[in-house]
Amino acid sequence: MNTFGTKFRLSTFGESHGVAIGGVIDGIPAGIKVNMSFIQSELDRRRPGGKYATSRKESDKIEILSGIYDGFTTGCPIGFIVANTSQHSKDYDNIKDLFRPGHADYTYFAKFGIRDHRGGGRSSARESVARVAGGAFAGLLLREFNIDIQSCVRQIGDIKADKIDFEFANSSEIFWADEATEESAKELILNTKNSNDSLGASVLTIIKNAPAGLGEVLYNKLDAALASAMMGINGVKGVEIGDGISVANMLGSQNNDYMDKSGFITNHCGGILGGISNGSDIVIKSYFKPTPSIFKAQPTLNLNGDETICQLRGRHDPCIGVRGSVVATAMARLVIADMLLLNATSNLNNLKRIYR
Amino acid sequence: MNTFGTKFRLSTFGESHGVAIGGVIDGIPAGIKVNMSFIQSELDRRRPGGKYATSRKESDKIEILSGIYDGFTTGCPIGFIVANTSQHSKDYDNIKDLFRPGHADYTYFAKFGIRDHRGGGRSSARESVARVAGGAFAGLLLREFNIDIQSCVRQIGDIKADKIDFEFANSSEIFWADEATEESAKELILNTKNSNDSLGASVLTIIKNAPAGLGEVLYNKLDAALASAMMGINGVKGVEIGDGISVANMLGSQNNDYMDKSGFITNHCGGILGGISNGSDIVIKSYFKPTPSIFKAQPTLNLNGDETICQLRGRHDPCIGVRGSVVATAMARLVIADMLLLNATSNLNNLKRIYR
Amino acid sequence: MNTFGTKFRLSTFGESHGVAIGGVIDGIPAGIKVNMSFIQSELDRRRPGGKYATSRKESDKIEILSGIYDGFTTGCPIGFIVANTSQHSKDYDNIKDLFRPGHADYTYFAKFGIRDHRGGGRSSARESVARVAGGAFAGLLLREFNIDIQSCVRQIGDIKADKIDFEFANSSEIFWADEATEESAKELILNTKNSNDSLGASVLTIIKNAPAGLGEVLYNKLDAALASAMMGINGVKGVEIGDGISVANMLGSQNNDYMDKSGFITNHCGGILGGISNGSDIVIKSYFKPTPSIFKAQPTLNLNGDETICQLRGRHDPCIGVRGSVVATAMARLVIADMLLLNATSNLNNLKRIYR
Amino acid sequence: MNTFGTKFRLSTFGESHGVAIGGVIDGIPAGIKVNMSFIQSELDRRRPGGKYATSRKESDKIEILSGIYDGFTTGCPIGFIVANTSQHSKDYDNIKDLFRPGHADYTYFAKFGIRDHRGGGRSSARESVARVAGGAFAGLLLREFNIDIQSCVRQIGDIKADKIDFEFANSSEIFWADEATEESAKELILNTKNSNDSLGASVLTIIKNAPAGLGEVLYNKLDAALASAMMGINGVKGVEIGDGISVANMLGSQNNDYMDKSGFITNHCGGILGGISNGSDIVIKSYFKPTPSIFKAQPTLNLNGDETICQLRGRHDPCIGVRGSVVATAMARLVIADMLLLNATSNLNNLKRIYR
Repeated sequence: MNTFGTKFRLSTFGESHGVAIGGVIDGIPAGIKVNMSFIQSELDRRRPGGKYATSRKESDKIEILSGIYDGFTTGCPIGFIVANTSQHSKDYDNIKDLFRPGHADYTYFAKFGIRDHRGGGRSSARESVARVAGGAFAGLLLREFNIDIQSCVRQIGDIKADKIDFEFANSSEIFWADEATEESAKELILNTKNSNDSLGASVLTIIKNAPAGLGEVLYNKLDAALASAMMGINGVKGVEIGDGISVANMLGSQNNDYMDKSGFITNHCGGILGGISNGSDIVIKSYFKPTPSIFKAQPTLNLNGDETICQLRGRHDPCIGVRGSVVATAMARLVIADMLLLNATSNLNNLKRIYR
Repeated sequence: MNTFGTKFRLSTFGESHGVAIGGVIDGIPAGIKVNMSFIQSELDRRRPGGKYATSRKESDKIEILSGIYDGFTTGCPIGFIVANTSQHSKDYDNIKDLFRPGHADYTYFAKFGIRDHRGGGRSSARESVARVAGGAFAGLLLREFNIDIQSCVRQIGDIKADKIDFEFANSSEIFWADEATEESAKELILNTKNSNDSLGASVLTIIKNAPAGLGEVLYNKLDAALASAMMGINGVKGVEIGDGISVANMLGSQNNDYMDKSGFITNHCGGILGGISNGSDIVIKSYFKPTPSIFKAQPTLNLNGDETICQLRGRHDPCIGVRGSVVATAMARLVIADMLLLNATSNLNNLKRIYR
Repeated sequence: MNTFGTKFRLSTFGESHGVAIGGVIDGIPAGIKVNMSFIQSELDRRRPGGKYATSRKESDKIEILSGIYDGFTTGCPIGFIVANTSQHSKDYDNIKDLFRPGHADYTYFAKFGIRDHRGGGRSSARESVARVAGGAFAGLLLREFNIDIQSCVRQIGDIKADKIDFEFANSSEIFWADEATEESAKELILNTKNSNDSLGASVLTIIKNAPAGLGEVLYNKLDAALASAMMGINGVKGVEIGDGISVANMLGSQNNDYMDKSGFITNHCGGILGGISNGSDIVIKSYFKPTPSIFKAQPTLNLNGDETICQLRGRHDPCIGVRGSVVATAMARLVIADMLLLNATSNLNNLKRIYR
Repeated sequence: MNTFGTKFRLSTFGESHGVAIGGVIDGIPAGIKVNMSFIQSELDRRRPGGKYATSRKESDKIEILSGIYDGFTTGCPIGFIVANTSQHSKDYDNIKDLFRPGHADYTYFAKFGIRDHRGGGRSSARESVARVAGGAFAGLLLREFNIDIQSCVRQIGDIKADKIDFEFANSSEIFWADEATEESAKELILNTKNSNDSLGASVLTIIKNAPAGLGEVLYNKLDAALASAMMGINGVKGVEIGDGISVANMLGSQNNDYMDKSGFITNHCGGILGGISNGSDIVIKSYFKPTPSIFKAQPTLNLNGDETICQLRGRHDPCIGVRGSVVATAMARLVIADMLLLNATSNLNNLKRIYR
């Protein structure tokens, strides 16, 4: 359904060309000071615009409808909306009756027998504005516990970042991890865009200072929840935790993380053992497919099942992984906030601290 | 928690050295003919034993406690247990007070402040016997709709299968996909075992004949659910759908799957678009870390925080990915059965077929 | 949390004196024709105003934000808001620091350590505007299956309706079931209001034409779900199904409903046996306490724990059960819609009708 | 489905004449000392036998399969079974093809198209053995916080207890609240049984020492959860909280509970305001219908839709409310345990006490 999380829950609604994208955050504890400029700044990071993203112009100002009183969360649900103001639905008239390749058009139609084709409707990446807003509120909670989550782009097409510099990435227009190769990455994006094509990308997300013990036994493990969160972002086709797929070619003696008095000496496991955080950095890599919306002519079917050619118009990101990195941070925040609440009652000692 | 799925639900319980592993299957439709020899044969495939697995001897006979009457499911929950008969808990006495590297010992202790150390307790891969049983019941449902799910091992250490032959894999003792390299793979396993070390692996799972339309909008997408299912299997550190991580280095024009009258011409997306099945084969790759239980001396901490050496005894698989492939099939079955039920009410036409 | 239902789900947000009350309806099947004037008319029935309700003036116009395209539901979540326009928050300044008797002030404060005191915040009956909107959408679904749900007021204070006439109740300003006693009931309301006091009430809800088979085994029984729905309405303190509390003084031979070829001859069970609908009318009675907001001076405590006097201002219904009857219909609709979807997959025959 | 609760969850399985009744308790915090004789004694209270209950003989010994180590809960799920040993399935042969009046036979058949008729299958009150076991474990948690829950029988047929004496009720064979009328109540039971009929009853449940703040905003309110729990017990047709249905005939000035420095002076609300506990005793009344299994000849239909006569054999309680009182305590314990866990994260202060 359209709800993410178990105890810290985000429910979202809205289509790309509808009135608004919105959401409801339920389960957020009372008493958190709400820094609205932080919330808005997170939305601004994700906001369309600039040379490397779609040219759709949206101010993406969030309007809070409930759940905050006198600057603090009340423990009641936070309803919010972000208006859609720059829909060019006419751009989509010519694809009303066909299935865009690489998109959810065919599958939504198969499922529902009806679809809002304008801008992709609900399947549009524009929905992620609600994820980012929800993630920002989760971030407010995590800050109270000094838990910090950041993401950066580490690969675009065949260019890989040689080092990971989150400080640089935060100021990079494309959230690129490595100053040395930022220009080549930008150039690749523009060149590909000019050739009417698009690019895939890889995003690194790191969660710092999460306490040991997060993750539920046995089917809501922390790694399973993170994999679900990341694979559920539009366009993600692969997820790795820690050493990821390279573990298939490692020996146990190489992959095991040993401990000394200072804690874990290595972090092959990416901060998660047995589905539960071990106190090390939690390390997640997500792989985004190239934007399916490209301006080349593409063979497809129409609603009648006839072969036809899809010739897109509209405004699209040349590389969805770039802004996807902001969404990855948001999803990781939602997962950790949820796990923080779920874990609170894992043992009697915790409970006794509350009900004393 | 210990429940997997939303509408077709498996709840499990049990520790490696407890009385039994068991589970409850809830939401299974009434009227399915129950082929008990199929259920048992699935458990037998996962069963320990043989040169390439742990030498723990378990008959793993399933006992059904409820939910079946006169050979058919009744729509009421199916309770089942599989007795533990071959616990050698003494083998674990020497690790009672320390944290085994690569295991959940440290994290369970951090979470609960207590742990059943015998055989890893609840975190043991032995729990997967309940997953396989649950998956087998899901398989009974899927068979009614001709949906078929199979897994094979395609990589062990540095040996990769050059081709994928499920028929061969089904008869291979190590579920290996390619007759040409099976012997080398087996040899690698034995050699690594003899050197007191262990191996990682990669498993391929293919779902055939799933109808288009499976997967929920927007946070219980089919790919997100599969990623959660696979990443939640003990030892899995990476999951790919379709082209997986290689999408980061593809162009949109390469990655989009075009359609002609026969349907989708290619399957880069691995059968899932916008989180919903498109009728193509659903293709999932999971990557298993090497068994953390190895017989080398390993540095770690004890419960007091002192540095010590972990010297394991007990019986362990040299490559958990091998039997993990059986679990991968089970988890995929559980996901597809759940999605089949969830999707049943996605549109009014479906409902009208039922309540007419 | 703030979500009602399992498969047909309503999540709501909003406080009495906040920007808006709103909600998200998730799980509604695609393809339902949306009759917006029906939706609005349901809100109008619940709307404040008139002599027998609070004098708060709200137009209660619903704004749909998503989930409907071209006049039909799309299967995606329906987001909606109803603006608050007539808050007189100043009326509540004098109760900011004290606990109003009979209200949730004390308990919210105990739970959250903070409360939005204006108009009762989230605990206000104004939230029910979202329930009524959600229930109206559920009603659209139920109409497709000719399921009809109605409520009326059958008792106010010591006046009881001698007969049940839903047609009359629908046109009665106080939803009263019996033309013969409507005037006395109205008079009682006004007299009590003038004496600064308030009245309790009893509401009858009848569900007609629900198919047999609705209700889940074993902890989401239809009667349990209805009891939860009704007891969860503000002010309800008792719920009966069928013969209700009088069963304590019946013999089995009196209470059992016998069948002949025409079906069930009697309906002591109120349409539910073993938690599942039997095809008879489903009969529910709810008992509303008198409005806690009265204009008499009442002893209470302030936030410091000192004794003080509560002297209310503001605008309040003299009998919350009257408008509560509209909410009762809404909640019953939500329950039945949910059960209709949940039951769709109860047996293999149903499923085969869908996936054929 | 077959799971009760959100965070403290009981999933049950099993039919009256199947191998066993069982359950899984998930979410119970680690570190609770398990007093097995308390658990068994609760099952013994519910156990069939004696003059005033069914003559089915069951030892009802509970077998724990998992989740306890060294006498303490581990935080992992507790699996348990209670064997069925005294099935007389032959007693039910003659009702295999007909619908017993007042039972779930017709509705299960309508829902599933199949039913296990032996002893009522899953719909039998024998399932409550799992509820009582689950409730007993919840009780272990509640004891850690001095929360005490008790039930007694306050009405059987037309005999009402004049006073409520829980101490006496605990030692009464029929859990009757009032020594003065116990003999008459017993006599009424025997006489009614001898005339082949059965009796309804009313049960009072009181929860003492629950902290203020329990109950979720806004659709998992404490009163809604309790109403669902009680109405979900086999045979319950009415539930009241506090003053219950009599509130319909009260004035606001009579029904409001005022506070002075000692706390709430009265308890009309039954310990719940706005769906959240206020620290007063929580007071619930449940009304049980007479046992539907009576030995008179009763008209009904068979599976072919033909009119026939139902002539029951088997062993049945003459008044299900008597043993139902034990189940009521169990359900209340499950609700309060769940709410205790859910409420733990309601505000930031609570969380900070845990993660400090």
